[in-house]
Amino acid sequence: MLPRGRPRALGAAALLLLLLLIGFFLFGGDVEYGRPRGAAAVDGDPSADRGGRNHSDCVPPRPPLPKCELLHVAIVCAGHNSSRDLVTLVKSVLFYRKNPLHFHLVTDAMARNILEMLFHTWMVPAVRVSFYDAEELKAGALALPHFFLAVPGPFFPPRASGVGACGRGQSCLGPPSPITPTEPQIPHPPWGVCLLPRVTRSVFGHSSALLCQVHALSSPTPPQQPQVSWIPNKHYSGLYGLMKLVLPAALPPELARVIVLDTDVTFASDIAELWALFAHFSDEQVIGLVENQSDWYLGNLWRNHRPWPALGRGFNTGVILLRLDRLRQAGWGQMWKLTATRELLTLPATSLADQDIFNAVIKEHPGLVQPLPCVWNVQLSDHTLAERCYSEASDLKVIHWNSPKKLRVKNKHVEYFRNLYLTFLEYDGNLLRRELFGCPSPPPAGAEQVQRALAQLDEEDACFEFRQQRLTVHRVHVTFLPHEPPPPRPHDVTLVAQLSMDRLQMLEALCRHWPGPMSLALYLTDAEAQQFLRFVEASAVLSARQNVAYHVVYREGPLYPVNQLRNVALAQALTPYVFLSDIDFLPAYSLYDDLRASLEQLKLGSERRAALVVPAFETLHYRFSFPSSKAEVLALLDSGSLYTFRYHEWPRGHAPTDYARWREAQTPYRVQWAADYEPYVVVPRDCPRYDPRFVGFGWNKVAHIVELDAQEYELLVLPEAFTIHLPHGPSLDISRFRSSPTYRDCLQAVKDEFHQDLSRRYGAAALKYLTALRQPRSPA
Amino acid sequence: MLPRGRPRALGAAALLLLLLLIGFFLFGGDVEYGRPRGAAAVDGDPSADRGGRNHSDCVPPRPPLPKCELLHVAIVCAGHNSSRDLVTLVKSVLFYRKNPLHFHLVTDAMARNILEMLFHTWMVPAVRVSFYDAEELKAGALALPHFFLAVPGPFFPPRASGVGACGRGQSCLGPPSPITPTEPQIPHPPWGVCLLPRVTRSVFGHSSALLCQVHALSSPTPPQQPQVSWIPNKHYSGLYGLMKLVLPAALPPELARVIVLDTDVTFASDIAELWALFAHFSDEQVIGLVENQSDWYLGNLWRNHRPWPALGRGFNTGVILLRLDRLRQAGWGQMWKLTATRELLTLPATSLADQDIFNAVIKEHPGLVQPLPCVWNVQLSDHTLAERCYSEASDLKVIHWNSPKKLRVKNKHVEYFRNLYLTFLEYDGNLLRRELFGCPSPPPAGAEQVQRALAQLDEEDACFEFRQQRLTVHRVHVTFLPHEPPPPRPHDVTLVAQLSMDRLQMLEALCRHWPGPMSLALYLTDAEAQQFLRFVEASAVLSARQNVAYHVVYREGPLYPVNQLRNVALAQALTPYVFLSDIDFLPAYSLYDDLRASLEQLKLGSERRAALVVPAFETLHYRFSFPSSKAEVLALLDSGSLYTFRYHEWPRGHAPTDYARWREAQTPYRVQWAADYEPYVVVPRDCPRYDPRFVGFGWNKVAHIVELDAQEYELLVLPEAFTIHLPHGPSLDISRFRSSPTYRDCLQAVKDEFHQDLSRRYGAAALKYLTALRQPRSPA
Repeated sequence: MLPRGRPRALGAAALLLLLLLIGFFLFGGDVEYGRPRGAAAVDGDPSADRGGRNHSDCVPPRPPLPKCELLHVAIVCAGHNSSRDLVTLVKSVLFYRKNPLHFHLVTDAMARNILEMLFHTWMVPAVRVSFYDAEELKAGALALPHFFLAVPGPFFPPRASGVGACGRGQSCLGPPSPITPTEPQIPHPPWGVCLLPRVTRSVFGHSSALLCQVHALSSPTPPQQPQVSWIPNKHYSGLYGLMKLVLPAALPPELARVIVLDTDVTFASDIAELWALFAHFSDEQVIGLVENQSDWYLGNLWRNHRPWPALGRGFNTGVILLRLDRLRQAGWGQMWKLTATRELLTLPATSLADQDIFNAVIKEHPGLVQPLPCVWNVQLSDHTLAERCYSEASDLKVIHWNSPKKLRVKNKHVEYFRNLYLTFLEYDGNLLRRELFGCPSPPPAGAEQVQRALAQLDEEDACFEFRQQRLTVHRVHVTFLPHEPPPPRPHDVTLVAQLSMDRLQMLEALCRHWPGPMSLALYLTDAEAQQFLRFVEASAVLSARQNVAYHVVYREGPLYPVNQLRNVALAQALTPYVFLSDIDFLPAYSLYDDLRASLEQLKLGSERRAALVVPAFETLHYRFSFPSSKAEVLALLDSGSLYTFRYHEWPRGHAPTDYARWREAQTPYRVQWAADYEPYVVVPRDCPRYDPRFVGFGWNKVAHIVELDAQEYELLVLPEAFTIHLPHGPSLDISRFRSSPTYRDCLQAVKDEFHQDLSRRYGAAALKYLTALRQPRSPA
Repeated sequence: MLPRGRPRALGAAALLLLLLLIGFFLFGGDVEYGRPRGAAAVDGDPSADRGGRNHSDCVPPRPPLPKCELLHVAIVCAGHNSSRDLVTLVKSVLFYRKNPLHFHLVTDAMARNILEMLFHTWMVPAVRVSFYDAEELKAGALALPHFFLAVPGPFFPPRASGVGACGRGQSCLGPPSPITPTEPQIPHPPWGVCLLPRVTRSVFGHSSALLCQVHALSSPTPPQQPQVSWIPNKHYSGLYGLMKLVLPAALPPELARVIVLDTDVTFASDIAELWALFAHFSDEQVIGLVENQSDWYLGNLWRNHRPWPALGRGFNTGVILLRLDRLRQAGWGQMWKLTATRELLTLPATSLADQDIFNAVIKEHPGLVQPLPCVWNVQLSDHTLAERCYSEASDLKVIHWNSPKKLRVKNKHVEYFRNLYLTFLEYDGNLLRRELFGCPSPPPAGAEQVQRALAQLDEEDACFEFRQQRLTVHRVHVTFLPHEPPPPRPHDVTLVAQLSMDRLQMLEALCRHWPGPMSLALYLTDAEAQQFLRFVEASAVLSARQNVAYHVVYREGPLYPVNQLRNVALAQALTPYVFLSDIDFLPAYSLYDDLRASLEQLKLGSERRAALVVPAFETLHYRFSFPSSKAEVLALLDSGSLYTFRYHEWPRGHAPTDYARWREAQTPYRVQWAADYEPYVVVPRDCPRYDPRFVGFGWNKVAHIVELDAQEYELLVLPEAFTIHLPHGPSLDISRFRSSPTYRDCLQAVKDEFHQDLSRRYGAAALKYLTALRQPRSPA
């Protein structure tokens, strides 16, 4: 039992210290707390197991865990792959944590776009997230052109140090993200006045107004060396690896302590235990680090191997405890820059990014470092000495995948460590939305409303699952895989669709039919998201495509949230127009080109709103030779190999397209809306969103077309365009709910609500939809 | 830092005790370790946080965790549903454990059949499992006929106390399992000489020869009350709930301590922390328990509510620490029986099974109990007072789903607890196959060979994934759902097939086409197994079927282990004959009846070995009206709506069936084997197994038919039988590997190995297969 609550903790700590001192005299120092030193610590680790015994030889007690204290964690993260890694790291931290947490994320625009949405939709109680702009932190790269920049390729390596899984055959580097920030651009402050990046926004109601603050250093940094980009670096993490050096200046000045983590570490324990080690710091110590578990800094790995200076084996910077307050007081910004500048007179570049500089500073000022027990950073590099640490330890705390090979590193026990990593990689992140009972905290923004709405639902209501599903906030991870946004072109079209695991095999065919940009929402579990990743990596067709953006929406609840998925994919489309399709349709090979040509010819704009109809057909054969022209489509129709879509079960859905007229048409022709019409259309990106009340199957597209008509979009059928539905077995969701007798009733209830809203918004103009609804017919 | 290693631990513990005593005097007892007492403990809990301060008022330190000590856990488990619950519990224990574990499982035949296979294939290092026969422990039910047996239905309730998820609409009771034990029957020893059940087998090389031992009680138990079945009991757990009372006698006499768990508890911490609480026991104490977190034993819940006697709120027996050695010495067997017999003079039956009796004994002998902190058994019943325990605790240790409603219990924080439970329900059990570095232990039986074989593989070999997959030992959970084996009938046939998640929607149709028994292997992840469970529960067709056995084979590796799956399903078939089918085939509605009639007429037996061929057809239409007779099949063939199976791509596979002859046939006719023949056949259950080397797709059935032919099975085509393949999209596995250029080469290599083995086993007779192989053709 450990003391909880500060006053008790202090009393108990004082008591224990006193008593242990007595014990030390009684037992002559023979009692050793912790596992046998030689075994647990890497040889030469000056601390390993006894971290913090600076002033006497006494053995400190296990420091008390900080009950309910807010813990701060800083992570540098850039690009798509690194963002996925960060999520896995955060999942491992959240799994074991019992304290409120504040994540300080230094990101590029790509990572920020991904992570802001992710945390916003994750809604984890007692977790705050703040973002800091990495681009500003590394600014000034060209101010010192006499240094050779060893970063390969363009200046925007999207991966921070510590990236979990740069897939086989995938490039770890990518181009800069052209996504324009949604925040208003603030003019850069004059150098020397403010070196802090703006804390642009904290995700969960943490409305810190800190936009720019005066630098706290005793002497202002010279303007020609504002941040880190002047440092030549050979490490695969690129400049992002160096950003840990500027955290004391970049993080809010009131922040006194922070744990800094690489994205390639995995927690196997409560992060509060790591935080508690701050208590071991002497007055002089400012940085807590674990010894480096390789011989790199000994400098004897190969002939002419000349590493940066370090104390013995040096320290690894994958896990750092920083006393920010003391670092600022001690003039850290000056200190590391002086050391780095001096070393760079004789060394060409850093090899291990920030780690080289931290070690060089520590070599000069050994008193700054508090060595941490090795279990807090078990390093799995190729020639790791980590086994000396963990072979006797039954309680590993943090695993560090610090080899560029990541999970594919060769190591006698790598299976063990992979299992730990896979645990969190595949862990259902929804399960981490759990309260901290011991530490009451306000619910995340939006969560309270959702909870209240959910609480008001009647579990006995036959449509309970319907109502529950549409209130569910799904975690969303946009651009799950590397993605190159399309160059801006005025008539470009993105294909928008959604799918779950059982339609993955459609992707290759779809890629062959549609060379243009796509925005696809995938409804997956965390484990399925990894299967999906491997599927893409294994496919030459999919790996080759850079203009397909995959957005993972995490599964929750029994009904397929079809319209929420469509809205996610639609919101992420980056071209002026979108083709709203479904995953089991293959468009004509020429459709992408034809659409752009039509859009250019039709001269649509803000004064003429139109939805271009792509006529839909279907084949009932599962071996099928795809027609290459309208003439071939007509021939197949005539021979009975092709039908107009849902001709047998639901002709109303597409009848208004007027297939007879399409046969003869040479130019686009206008058609009128009619009840239950649900064509596949091309519309401007800013078209109305889908109504998220429609979940599962039925009427989800119909409602959207009603909305387009209500907003007076012209419906124009394209004379050469076509898309064909391929046969497939019934999906699990559809078979589950087709048989449900209450399903149709619930759908009807949702339709009624939809029409009420329609009348409210469009008044008398919406009357025709209600009238149409009253005509007898079978539901979609 | 805590002491590790026994001598150090003892020294440290003694030191701490001494020093803390001094501390107590110095601080006048004001220092309180642990969280505030009133908040953390349920009111009236005499121990909660200070467990073990018996001899003085001093505050004990957190007891040292037992490094590498083997911890013993006993669990009573009966039936299919309880077995699933046990797996979830064990997963939660294994996730946090750092010690070797020995599980002592008291099971009925059903649970044993399931769990023996499960643990054998799970291969978790440093885990031993022993089984004890529950039927023997409860024997003697009719010896005391004057007691009314309140167990509903037959005497074989398949659920122990603490069952996680008795699904909606599913009966929690089932018939006895007719599966005959594979162990030789040992005659029951005379009463009074041996009351121990035989320790029939320990799964992992723990060859305890303990078959029957002399009872250790001071006076032998009277022969008319041998075990527990004489006790009337109203609890839903049935007699299994009472079996915890006889554990001191049932477990091996050398076993001194054990943790006893209900199957409906979930661990959220390292079980060694619980084990460490044994250190708090005084010399007199024998049972560690957490206070009951309801008002049940206060006896004021309703008018005439008369619970069994208890100290205050009494104790809950979902989590028990038992000092078996002391219990045996103290004559526990006599003690509880005397108390129970006396109470049963005035009370009609136990309401809460063993818990009533434990409490009555403790009421009489309060010195026996060591109260445990409430966090070790947080009870989630409907009117639980548990919130008083956990509302202040940030570290819950064990959750107990002790409401009959289980996960559907109403509770302000039930979402939180459900998340913990779902974590382990859906956790990939393969990831728990991790070594304990700190505690070296021999690998599980078989694991070493597998590891050695895997280590010899060359990762650069193009067929590496093939070779790796076939060496993989998959975890197998047979009869995942309740299942009623078919009554023994000499000509009965079980349909055998395998599937993964993407074919689940075939099950309902298959059930409509085949009313007979089925044995199906499902290749799933742990999370998918839960989706599958919900799918079956939601389907009226599937829920109604008791003669379909579902065997879950857990996914591991990139290739579909088709033949391993077939072998699992085949091994679990319980009828004399099996129909070896594939999941995307629907048999003629009359096939089950026709086959049994044919088998009876053909008088097959040990002297005449035959494989009855069921001709296979296919439709390319996904809307299809199934033919009800051979005449209709012929008509559809003639109209081009139906084809012989794989007529377009691979006619060799079924050509030897001789469809032309089938057209006219009135009686079974014999056909000859030919290369690449792969018909669907009915064979005796003891037919050759499938060759597990064939993984993924290709030649897996062909090899089996070769084997049948080599063993001189006659191939007899049935004149009225037929089965039809339905179209479906390509599976993920098939699309992944059809495109792989090395796939065909690897398949060829496996074929070559197969033929070499064939020659070795059948000599010259196998020559014809090699000759046939050399004919040019495209691979299957």
